[in-house]
Amino acid sequence: MLSTDLEFAQPPVCLSGDRPTGPLHLGHYVGSLRQRLALQRRFPLYVMIADLQGLTDNGSNPRKVADNILQVMADYLAVGLDPSRTTLCLQSALPALPELTMLYMNIVSVARVARNPTVKAEITQKGFSANLPAGFLLYPVSQAADITAFNAERIPVGDDQLPMLEQTNELVQRMNRLLPQPVLRPCQAILSQVGRLPGIDGNAKMSKSLGNALPLGATAAQIRTAVHAMYTDPQHLRVSDPGRVEGNVVFTYLDAFHPDAERVAQMKEQYRRGGLGDSQCKRELEGCLQELLAPIRQRRAEFLADPAMLLQILRQGSERARAVSQQTLMAVKRGLGLPLMY
Amino acid sequence: MLSTDLEFAQPPVCLSGDRPTGPLHLGHYVGSLRQRLALQRRFPLYVMIADLQGLTDNGSNPRKVADNILQVMADYLAVGLDPSRTTLCLQSALPALPELTMLYMNIVSVARVARNPTVKAEITQKGFSANLPAGFLLYPVSQAADITAFNAERIPVGDDQLPMLEQTNELVQRMNRLLPQPVLRPCQAILSQVGRLPGIDGNAKMSKSLGNALPLGATAAQIRTAVHAMYTDPQHLRVSDPGRVEGNVVFTYLDAFHPDAERVAQMKEQYRRGGLGDSQCKRELEGCLQELLAPIRQRRAEFLADPAMLLQILRQGSERARAVSQQTLMAVKRGLGLPLMY
Repeated sequence: MLSTDLEFAQPPVCLSGDRPTGPLHLGHYVGSLRQRLALQRRFPLYVMIADLQGLTDNGSNPRKVADNILQVMADYLAVGLDPSRTTLCLQSALPALPELTMLYMNIVSVARVARNPTVKAEITQKGFSANLPAGFLLYPVSQAADITAFNAERIPVGDDQLPMLEQTNELVQRMNRLLPQPVLRPCQAILSQVGRLPGIDGNAKMSKSLGNALPLGATAAQIRTAVHAMYTDPQHLRVSDPGRVEGNVVFTYLDAFHPDAERVAQMKEQYRRGGLGDSQCKRELEGCLQELLAPIRQRRAEFLADPAMLLQILRQGSERARAVSQQTLMAVKRGLGLPLMY
Repeated sequence: MLSTDLEFAQPPVCLSGDRPTGPLHLGHYVGSLRQRLALQRRFPLYVMIADLQGLTDNGSNPRKVADNILQVMADYLAVGLDPSRTTLCLQSALPALPELTMLYMNIVSVARVARNPTVKAEITQKGFSANLPAGFLLYPVSQAADITAFNAERIPVGDDQLPMLEQTNELVQRMNRLLPQPVLRPCQAILSQVGRLPGIDGNAKMSKSLGNALPLGATAAQIRTAVHAMYTDPQHLRVSDPGRVEGNVVFTYLDAFHPDAERVAQMKEQYRRGGLGDSQCKRELEGCLQELLAPIRQRRAEFLADPAMLLQILRQGSERARAVSQQTLMAVKRGLGLPLMY
């Protein structure tokens, strides 16, 4: 999919981001951060800390969102997102986004928003019923504002997020039809090649709130404890027993983090046959994770020791992002015939 | 109700406004404009052209809103709203309003918004069903942003709008509880003493879309035609017949526009008794309306001949309004713990 992009003179803009509701963890690393490191070398990349979106289901607990903004910034820089290549920005620092959201809200029906499968699933999962916050129901509209504000045409997502992009493109089409000439660009997904990293307990999703996550800032001892606790094959009792690799979290992680794929293939074969113990597999995995996370942990701590610098980098990126998003807003307003007053 | 306000060292801020979906008419003059002329002498008054709100049910017809912004500005100035006293501003020129709206949307449930009686009635009246625009359902949240952004504590409304202020005050309370110290001020209604002016056809509501309105810019001929067509007492066939004053639009208008209340009382008595013809009543009413509207029409035309000046006045007011609304936004963000980046 990416190969055709290279044929463009101007590579398309990519947008990605995270809700700052906790420090990032290995699931983010595998699911998005690693991919962004590759993207930032080939595309103009915006990475947005989506604090406003984080508030849509934490409206009564704003500190949870506010306190994690710099945590996420430290994660970004520690893994190697490069602010000289990538625009790191803060959603709440970009007034064009709420302004576009308000304009888009008038051309989408409540029924259409409520039909969004991703939002429906999340509403069930989060246990909202009578208390569904209005902002949460409407966050896909706000996401459409994010994407279009930056003229982003490539959005790295998991396939559960495709309905969001579909809704964005509907809004793009509807708004463009109202304007004398099209202003907004439709977007397409860059689907992740990698499956979602399971939690250390084998749960399909790694999540801080499920208590099965390994944060990027984990200490050496936390990494060791997590790997020790990892779910393997409960039938694999003796080293000599044949074991199952499928659904065995240790092997899923070895696939994700071991630098030598051939070595992992050998281990899998031996494990299946019998003769390879869980503790040896875990030792090898632990080695990989310690090696991966030690420098990230150290850089993370250094960055967090200087919050003023983190804020400064975020401010600079947000200024760049503000200029671009403001241009889009002005083009939409001009097209709608509204006076431009600032 | 107003008398106690005079006891404040600082008179409370008032906010009022109109959706620019058409030029204003006599209904606006009686229902709100005349009251604002009194308010602007006693209170800091913001009058907002609510173009964003106008778009909530005109999302697919933005020109209808955009094209009427300067029409409404001309109406304001022509009736005597004084930009040196009153801040005339444009909603879409105030980015703090959408930003506050987004923050408030997270602390109000969809169910609560859908229960707002004013919105429910309007949804029925406008015939929305499956196509209810998201922005329309949520416009009370946006109104709460308007009111609180200016620290407005007095809102002139009709009693059908009281649920809006109730919802605003709920949001004020909820948001203030999330902040280290209260930032937002609760508001209260200034209820209009005057009933709503009926349409010239006797319909309870004067409205451009009902075709029963007399715009402030009406020509002398249009005024004459409208008064001639006015609904009186259909049983009052001969001059000598006794007639009904109640529900007789001509008398409702005489009450609203005749400068001499005693003369109107005499006319009513004579009409009830018999011996006063509709055409004489209409002649007298027409005289009042011609006298009222001639200078308004002329000033209106002069203002509309200089759109650059209208825009300039609107821009200056919007700048003042932007500074105030931005301060409120910053205080809310600071209280929520969000970094202030611009």
